[in-house]
Amino acid sequence: MDLTAYERRLSRPTRIKLPEFQRNGRLKHVIFADQFDRPMLENLDTLSNMVRELARDRETQLFLRDLLPHKRAMLYFTQASTRTFLSFTAACQLLGMPIAEIRDPSVSSEYKGESPFDSMRMFSSYFDLVVMRTAAAGFAEACAYLMNDLDEFNERHVPVVNGGSGADEHPTQALLDIHTIQRCFEFASERDSSKRTRFDDYRKTYPDLTRGLDSKVYGFCGDIGRGRTVHSLATLLALYSDVQMHFVSPPDDRMRLPGPMRESLSAKGVKVFEHDSLADIVENVDLLYMTRIQWEHDKDNSGRSGPAAVDPNFVLTPELADRMKSYAPILHPFPRNAEIPFEVDHNSRAMYFREARNGMWVRAALLAHLFDVDGLIVSHHREVFSHYHDYNTGSK
Amino acid sequence: MDLTAYERRLSRPTRIKLPEFQRNGRLKHVIFADQFDRPMLENLDTLSNMVRELARDRETQLFLRDLLPHKRAMLYFTQASTRTFLSFTAACQLLGMPIAEIRDPSVSSEYKGESPFDSMRMFSSYFDLVVMRTAAAGFAEACAYLMNDLDEFNERHVPVVNGGSGADEHPTQALLDIHTIQRCFEFASERDSSKRTRFDDYRKTYPDLTRGLDSKVYGFCGDIGRGRTVHSLATLLALYSDVQMHFVSPPDDRMRLPGPMRESLSAKGVKVFEHDSLADIVENVDLLYMTRIQWEHDKDNSGRSGPAAVDPNFVLTPELADRMKSYAPILHPFPRNAEIPFEVDHNSRAMYFREARNGMWVRAALLAHLFDVDGLIVSHHREVFSHYHDYNTGSK
Amino acid sequence: MDLTAYERRLSRPTRIKLPEFQRNGRLKHVIFADQFDRPMLENLDTLSNMVRELARDRETQLFLRDLLPHKRAMLYFTQASTRTFLSFTAACQLLGMPIAEIRDPSVSSEYKGESPFDSMRMFSSYFDLVVMRTAAAGFAEACAYLMNDLDEFNERHVPVVNGGSGADEHPTQALLDIHTIQRCFEFASERDSSKRTRFDDYRKTYPDLTRGLDSKVYGFCGDIGRGRTVHSLATLLALYSDVQMHFVSPPDDRMRLPGPMRESLSAKGVKVFEHDSLADIVENVDLLYMTRIQWEHDKDNSGRSGPAAVDPNFVLTPELADRMKSYAPILHPFPRNAEIPFEVDHNSRAMYFREARNGMWVRAALLAHLFDVDGLIVSHHREVFSHYHDYNTGSK
Repeated sequence: MDLTAYERRLSRPTRIKLPEFQRNGRLKHVIFADQFDRPMLENLDTLSNMVRELARDRETQLFLRDLLPHKRAMLYFTQASTRTFLSFTAACQLLGMPIAEIRDPSVSSEYKGESPFDSMRMFSSYFDLVVMRTAAAGFAEACAYLMNDLDEFNERHVPVVNGGSGADEHPTQALLDIHTIQRCFEFASERDSSKRTRFDDYRKTYPDLTRGLDSKVYGFCGDIGRGRTVHSLATLLALYSDVQMHFVSPPDDRMRLPGPMRESLSAKGVKVFEHDSLADIVENVDLLYMTRIQWEHDKDNSGRSGPAAVDPNFVLTPELADRMKSYAPILHPFPRNAEIPFEVDHNSRAMYFREARNGMWVRAALLAHLFDVDGLIVSHHREVFSHYHDYNTGSK
Repeated sequence: MDLTAYERRLSRPTRIKLPEFQRNGRLKHVIFADQFDRPMLENLDTLSNMVRELARDRETQLFLRDLLPHKRAMLYFTQASTRTFLSFTAACQLLGMPIAEIRDPSVSSEYKGESPFDSMRMFSSYFDLVVMRTAAAGFAEACAYLMNDLDEFNERHVPVVNGGSGADEHPTQALLDIHTIQRCFEFASERDSSKRTRFDDYRKTYPDLTRGLDSKVYGFCGDIGRGRTVHSLATLLALYSDVQMHFVSPPDDRMRLPGPMRESLSAKGVKVFEHDSLADIVENVDLLYMTRIQWEHDKDNSGRSGPAAVDPNFVLTPELADRMKSYAPILHPFPRNAEIPFEVDHNSRAMYFREARNGMWVRAALLAHLFDVDGLIVSHHREVFSHYHDYNTGSK
Repeated sequence: MDLTAYERRLSRPTRIKLPEFQRNGRLKHVIFADQFDRPMLENLDTLSNMVRELARDRETQLFLRDLLPHKRAMLYFTQASTRTFLSFTAACQLLGMPIAEIRDPSVSSEYKGESPFDSMRMFSSYFDLVVMRTAAAGFAEACAYLMNDLDEFNERHVPVVNGGSGADEHPTQALLDIHTIQRCFEFASERDSSKRTRFDDYRKTYPDLTRGLDSKVYGFCGDIGRGRTVHSLATLLALYSDVQMHFVSPPDDRMRLPGPMRESLSAKGVKVFEHDSLADIVENVDLLYMTRIQWEHDKDNSGRSGPAAVDPNFVLTPELADRMKSYAPILHPFPRNAEIPFEVDHNSRAMYFREARNGMWVRAALLAHLFDVDGLIVSHHREVFSHYHDYNTGSK
């Protein structure tokens, strides 16, 4: 893909670029996980919880569906990602947004020699938002520049959301991971649960336990070197204070923690450790983020050859899972291979299916933010839940 | 596909399994045609008729669309079936349900080595219903067990509807066939027709004719051995009393009536006959169910070689159609090849296009049942059609 | 594709066929650009403008969405055309119509030997409108005949819209081109603009300039011989009086103006000229319609080889664009290759992206017309815009 027209802008350091994706302290496009600072993460966490609450009952869900029926979303996914695609689909449906989609790159005018930027302007002609996932790194970012240029010329332009373009960025995955962790570390009681003291219960066993993401020990296991979800999540967790991170990976340079990332995390005050066996850290971590070994990169192009035999050092067996702290959540960005056996799915620490479902709430919250209807959600939520204050402090 | 985790449950006799797909006398999942007993079939017939009636006018159709806008459906069709897919699509749209779809098996995370059961839990995370059609026999059933297990663990679970998985079951096709027959054998007058005496007219020529599915002679013609729609329909028709069935097929062991099926029907009191030419039965049957010879099973894997020359013994020519009883409906599950020439389409007995359209009403009724909004349909229908009683007795 | 059953009707002269696609002076099906006469074009132009105006604000857009939620559209696009497909998708969404789609010809029952006319009846069983684009010339027209025959038999039938089937007809593209020209030649002031005198300003420089499509010099450049959009547009422009047309093409018999078309235009009173370089006409034309060289027809079947080096005689360079009359719009039906460099996109004459967006308004207007809700749009527009008269005369 020819990105030369945007090359100069693409090659700048991320920190220089960020203001171009914001507007008045809000998100204009969603391109990098680095766009999210702590206040934004907390804001989106609260909003995601409200969306979830409002989606529970028919009447409040109809309120959500009435928020964006006048906006249309284009989902442009020429790189396969069923989970992200379906999650955005459900998020749009929650807010009443009609969707158009391209999932098959061959069904496209591009075979007639059209520039992908002309395709992008076509999408922005018919639709009010473009969520995109393509194999080309930088394309979503370049599309955001195209939209900004149109904005300057007073031409029609729409928000661009990066659904995982290229090898390095998947900001909405990072967002749902953080939201899941925020939610876990609220230690709120289960809905409709009579026990109101989950946090207090845990404190009996773990007296130093605190609420929130600060002062925690985070474990990551698997393909650390090539797992972009690990990179994005670690970067966001580095926004919190008094954080330890333990990375467990095969002793292969492609899979272990990259040097620049180690340095970057350390520079932000994170205490970083590396290990070569999951057993070394399970008892110590407050949270375990498992990932699969991306074996398809090691194979021929077909990607069909299947995973290599799984090294037991990077598998969370039921026995290892039981040795974890009782409150410590197990996350996984999916798809999984054999690194978490099915037997672990019913372990009370297993949060990865809820994590997947959280992607829907977070993406709906993000869309609501982009279209400036988040305020409507907040005020409607307050109206519906008269016990709003209680809920927010976790004592509902 | 690896179904070993469910193998024990899959291998049990059907009758043992059925209670697991029900809840309080209602359907929980739709996996087998055997789940439908007579009261259920009559219930769904009535409901389908009400959906059809309510879909006629804008205002009452808007009532239908307001029933399930808060539920989202996932249509997972990795085995091609345009007709079933579109019929479910239209049914969901009738009830206002947003839809997500997978029709191309290659656009999936499965190439990364993910278990199809993880995919299923992903679908059930984002959506409130999964309709599935896959090549693997037993997969829909196994997914229903997965959902039931989640139910036991108080985890999120959703209804599973079998859209024709595998070689042996296609319960919603059986349902629409039965509904079409129920409707034909009501002998109700046409809508807006002034003649109110269609049944009485027929009785002048056929004095023994009765309303309903009992005491009828059913003819089946074509690929009896491999036509799963024939199997399912015959099984359901065996629920009625005083039934004869005549099966017309090529004298090939793959295509003629399988021995076990003959025995099973006979055991239920059906009088079973076999023939080798359609001409032998056309004048005698109260209904003729035509099917195509499934020639693609006889060819190379491409499935592109086209049907063999059609044997005239299994073709319903216009002449043969005219020799049928004047009220006897001609059905066909589609797709058809040459077994019914186009000239027959305008014969007043030809009901196969209405049968196809009935699939939409029946599936909408089924979805309404699964989400417990069938009661709303019944009461709204009663409210709108003050002549409700008359309608139901066919004298509208 | 076997169209023999319709061969006699397909081979008739167009003018004989037209009445079969109308009903009471309105459109019944949309098959040929020739179906649009001047009153119809003006009617649809007004309606398209109203749809655009009503789509601007949430409340009026909700009015549009409430027009056709009780109708369902089938988009059957087995010939790839992302732009036309998405444009129809957005048009349906604007009017609240749920959509089902087939974009992949392999996901179809046709591999089982089904007639495409059975597929068409399936679509018309489940949906209330079929928009189709297939490779087979004449298929959309034949489907319209099928529907008309069903109409005669009092069977269910639905409108058929040709979305570009075959090599020769693309009526909705012609419609959006005409609408864009009508809009440009209104010389209306920009929305929210304070200058109310755009037309008067132009008249200072071009004192003979008039409003409307009569008395204009139209330029066409590119693949004149094989560009069906050029053929359709030229045919519709010939409905206007005192029209000149200048065709610029490579001196290749496949690409230059076909003799019969030249004769047909001349017979309608158009003054026709041919040129071999764009530079010859840019200063003279009131409008320039650029098209790409359809190089894929010259290559192997893969269509993947990419455009030949572009001949500068058929490229609208920024310098050439600047030499055009200041009011003269540049149009292009897309996709484009290199015949319009990106630098021209910000030239104030460049109307091709607005032209693309107009496709959405025009198609929504057309659907509203087909379902007889155009009157509701007109009356609601009048109600909302109390300055309706001013708007319509361009003095808003």
